[in-house]
Amino acid sequence: MKHSADLTSLLQQLLEQCRPLYSQGKVANYIPALAQVAPQHAAVAIATLDGQVHSAGDARLNFSLQSISKIFGLVMAMNRLDDELWQRVNMEPSGQPFNSIVQLEWEKGIPRNPVINAGAILVADVLVSHYSASKTAFLTFLRRLTGEQNIYADQQVYLSELEHGNRNAALAYLMKSFGNIEAEVPLVLEHYFHQCATAINCEQLAQSLLFLANRGVQPGSNEQICSRRDAHRVNAILSTSGMYDQSGEFAFKVGLPAKSGVGGAIVAIVPQFGVITAWSPPLNRFGNSVVAMQLISNLADELGLSLF
Amino acid sequence: MKHSADLTSLLQQLLEQCRPLYSQGKVANYIPALAQVAPQHAAVAIATLDGQVHSAGDARLNFSLQSISKIFGLVMAMNRLDDELWQRVNMEPSGQPFNSIVQLEWEKGIPRNPVINAGAILVADVLVSHYSASKTAFLTFLRRLTGEQNIYADQQVYLSELEHGNRNAALAYLMKSFGNIEAEVPLVLEHYFHQCATAINCEQLAQSLLFLANRGVQPGSNEQICSRRDAHRVNAILSTSGMYDQSGEFAFKVGLPAKSGVGGAIVAIVPQFGVITAWSPPLNRFGNSVVAMQLISNLADELGLSLF
Amino acid sequence: MKHSADLTSLLQQLLEQCRPLYSQGKVANYIPALAQVAPQHAAVAIATLDGQVHSAGDARLNFSLQSISKIFGLVMAMNRLDDELWQRVNMEPSGQPFNSIVQLEWEKGIPRNPVINAGAILVADVLVSHYSASKTAFLTFLRRLTGEQNIYADQQVYLSELEHGNRNAALAYLMKSFGNIEAEVPLVLEHYFHQCATAINCEQLAQSLLFLANRGVQPGSNEQICSRRDAHRVNAILSTSGMYDQSGEFAFKVGLPAKSGVGGAIVAIVPQFGVITAWSPPLNRFGNSVVAMQLISNLADELGLSLF
Amino acid sequence: MKHSADLTSLLQQLLEQCRPLYSQGKVANYIPALAQVAPQHAAVAIATLDGQVHSAGDARLNFSLQSISKIFGLVMAMNRLDDELWQRVNMEPSGQPFNSIVQLEWEKGIPRNPVINAGAILVADVLVSHYSASKTAFLTFLRRLTGEQNIYADQQVYLSELEHGNRNAALAYLMKSFGNIEAEVPLVLEHYFHQCATAINCEQLAQSLLFLANRGVQPGSNEQICSRRDAHRVNAILSTSGMYDQSGEFAFKVGLPAKSGVGGAIVAIVPQFGVITAWSPPLNRFGNSVVAMQLISNLADELGLSLF
Repeated sequence: MKHSADLTSLLQQLLEQCRPLYSQGKVANYIPALAQVAPQHAAVAIATLDGQVHSAGDARLNFSLQSISKIFGLVMAMNRLDDELWQRVNMEPSGQPFNSIVQLEWEKGIPRNPVINAGAILVADVLVSHYSASKTAFLTFLRRLTGEQNIYADQQVYLSELEHGNRNAALAYLMKSFGNIEAEVPLVLEHYFHQCATAINCEQLAQSLLFLANRGVQPGSNEQICSRRDAHRVNAILSTSGMYDQSGEFAFKVGLPAKSGVGGAIVAIVPQFGVITAWSPPLNRFGNSVVAMQLISNLADELGLSLF
Repeated sequence: MKHSADLTSLLQQLLEQCRPLYSQGKVANYIPALAQVAPQHAAVAIATLDGQVHSAGDARLNFSLQSISKIFGLVMAMNRLDDELWQRVNMEPSGQPFNSIVQLEWEKGIPRNPVINAGAILVADVLVSHYSASKTAFLTFLRRLTGEQNIYADQQVYLSELEHGNRNAALAYLMKSFGNIEAEVPLVLEHYFHQCATAINCEQLAQSLLFLANRGVQPGSNEQICSRRDAHRVNAILSTSGMYDQSGEFAFKVGLPAKSGVGGAIVAIVPQFGVITAWSPPLNRFGNSVVAMQLISNLADELGLSLF
Repeated sequence: MKHSADLTSLLQQLLEQCRPLYSQGKVANYIPALAQVAPQHAAVAIATLDGQVHSAGDARLNFSLQSISKIFGLVMAMNRLDDELWQRVNMEPSGQPFNSIVQLEWEKGIPRNPVINAGAILVADVLVSHYSASKTAFLTFLRRLTGEQNIYADQQVYLSELEHGNRNAALAYLMKSFGNIEAEVPLVLEHYFHQCATAINCEQLAQSLLFLANRGVQPGSNEQICSRRDAHRVNAILSTSGMYDQSGEFAFKVGLPAKSGVGGAIVAIVPQFGVITAWSPPLNRFGNSVVAMQLISNLADELGLSLF
Repeated sequence: MKHSADLTSLLQQLLEQCRPLYSQGKVANYIPALAQVAPQHAAVAIATLDGQVHSAGDARLNFSLQSISKIFGLVMAMNRLDDELWQRVNMEPSGQPFNSIVQLEWEKGIPRNPVINAGAILVADVLVSHYSASKTAFLTFLRRLTGEQNIYADQQVYLSELEHGNRNAALAYLMKSFGNIEAEVPLVLEHYFHQCATAINCEQLAQSLLFLANRGVQPGSNEQICSRRDAHRVNAILSTSGMYDQSGEFAFKVGLPAKSGVGGAIVAIVPQFGVITAWSPPLNRFGNSVVAMQLISNLADELGLSLF
């Protein structure tokens, strides 16, 4: 591995290389609050198990966590339910768009995995049903992982999601019709949209997920966030399903467990090493940030991080 | 890692532990020639990059390679076509049964990946079109990788496949109707069934794929079998799609690139270490050998081989 | 045609012939309120254009109108929207279960026809949006068509539907996500479930739909209920799609436009002659009443009513 | 009904009205032999039960029978197999494109009805298996129905179909994989393409199908071509499924059992009256002739032929 100074300058250099690609993507516009973000923002950060954080660009500027919130929700749900969770949601790649209702119908209300929308809504149902104040519990969890108290949900994004969430409502009601949602659907959706609306920055996000690269233990606090087996499981799911319908291509090119969100961020876990985050709002047709994907790909190449 | 003697006795011990599970599966019976194999056979082998081979059970008894042949075909095709190949076949997990015609129709004749049947038939088309005698070329490739001259296709299995291959014929004609098959369909199917009918044993199979754990270089001969990038790519595909519709669960439990075949074998690649093979004919409902899956899972646990 | 006395005794005779088939079906049990109906009830009625009504069995006992309500809703919507309606709902047979969400997804929120659930919910949206008090307007329409003031919605059935309507909610939210529902989804569903819960008997139902057999004119009052073209259109839709996934078989066996409901009733239109209704709660696997279907089939044979 | 002279001049007049629409369609080009037909051809003919034939335009010019051949094949198959036929093919509308492989997969190799491609290939299998020389038998049947000896298959079209028939081959092999095709697939396809390639003209076609408007009896010869029940059944199938994915719209607009072919012809059965045929090569996006569809629609309006 590189020295620290080298690493920061490498990040800087790769950021400048990849930044121009932003014009090839399109900022998510399905909700107005997301559509307003400036497309030129870009950032990258690496947090390593030894406690260091390196970054370049707008790495302390907040973005919308969106689907990356599915990782945190999943870990919280795994901590409450054991194998029962895997009766209600599968762990297989979907081979379908992230919000496919067709597959959910075929598989009788059992989502393919917890990081497609249906699966994350099911996880939200678990949180609503098993935490007394699930929205607060989610924020508390993130504050604990980042050591920052100012992690919050963006109210404008949250309300915007609620208003434009008809497709997610359809997924939720379909699962409820199969008996796979316990709580009232509106409560489940509120939780889900609230966690999606979390505002966070690249440095915070990278640090927050170090436990996944460290067998469940958060390095700073030495706290066991989840079991070693569950850290492994989360990485496995991210590796086959984290990048929407580009998960195979990401494994092909990068070879790391990763998750993207329509806010334009991507996070990649490097077992035994650390966590990489990158952010740039414009998305490709699969919903993945063009710049962030290229950045992480180049960085993984440079540092030889592929698992394969 | 363990000492050699320890490793052999560990294999022995795990084989005896897992062997009784054979009664939970069912030997593939869609072709008569496969249905005749005795369900009690079981074997496990590890070949490591340093040239050692350890095994237990029927590790020198031949079985039918079946879908594991897709790995070899893919490497051969990658060596002839470059990115053109990835215009004709995708690299995403399928989220569908291995022989799904529905997905092939939706995606207009472009198979989801090269290790589902449609993808492997497309690869067979590449081989038929780009090698002068593709069936012989395939066997020659395996002989070169194993250093054994007595690798052959089982004629009874081959003829049996040809006779019962109507579904694969449907996949091939559908791709041809979309213009994605170049050669005559009967020739393509002949190649495909011929490579599936290859007879091989666990020790040979483990040794043959060492190059995938070694960045494309076969350790014994030091020959570059494929580029480093392509070795990485094959592992990535196996990791998201190699275990049929249990690929996610396998990543979850084992965390290694792997491929199974309805002959009852499973092969798992351990980058920088070696290759594990296991064999026992009875299959679970996903088409994966019950005993082989458990064996490899336990072995990966014992040796701490998971990538995650 | 037969004399009146003959017709009544024919109905009597066919009812006794077909009644024993009730044991081959199963009363709808997806909502508790429907599951309580006694399976032995059976009735048949014919209303003819000359004003006569013949019946046998429990022809004045109320049953739940359920999907047959879709006819009335459709006529009301056609009277408010012209071709605009057919931009929002198609007129093709579905080839899918009546509540299929898969097809709705494929066809981007445009239901296949107005007598599958998604289509009828879309029609409910039209009614909610274009009538000031749509639930009352629906009942008023039925009262006008039957000349009976005591047509009402069964409150127990209505509440039961609301509580168990998650799948219909999924259909509605999915259409809303495609921009094909104007009103608030809960209001649309309330209307839909309310009209489904209408209580009516065989004699009333037969009389109420005479206008469809008479080019849009209700014979008693001589009122033009809908245009001649729209009466024709409704019959055409019922003829290709009215009997769920048994529409083809019904055309095959009976050859008349018809609609069934899970309350156990079936209504068949005989252009230029009259309307037949039959009722018996136990349903076959397609959701059609076993006894009512056989009764109408035998009656059509006896009277030579097939259109073909 | 009109007098004869009136009828001929009405046909003439409607033909001139509708002919200009030909520019809105596109001649079928999936096989070269069909693509060569001049788009300006247009014809209409009516044969009535009393033995008269009226026509206008190119009513004695041959066109390619294509999918309309499915009617004749079906009648021949019904004459050999009784209810066994309906175990192997369903009678429901498909709600899918005419050559959908997805639905065939879902329904385990049982085609939805005998007038989509899969169903007609299944019927071809019945003919190949139950007639000693099925291609000749098919032509003999048409010669008998028309009283013309010069009915033949166009060899250029036939060979062209064989060469471009990969999708139909996929359907056939898929059915064979489900055990629903008895004969060798290439033989079945040869028969199917041969019957599609039949050359016929509007007058001949109208006369040939009079038995369907006459309860199974061919008026000229007084021969019972099929049972009354089977004539009824064929009309029922045509009425729900004869016009591809525009069957519902055709029922809506015209209200008659009908079948179209990509050669540009449409035939409509008017029970108890006669048969209408119209022909003009350019097709709309559903595969139905633009001019022929409008012509038959206008004619049915003028003569009040709708069944509803």
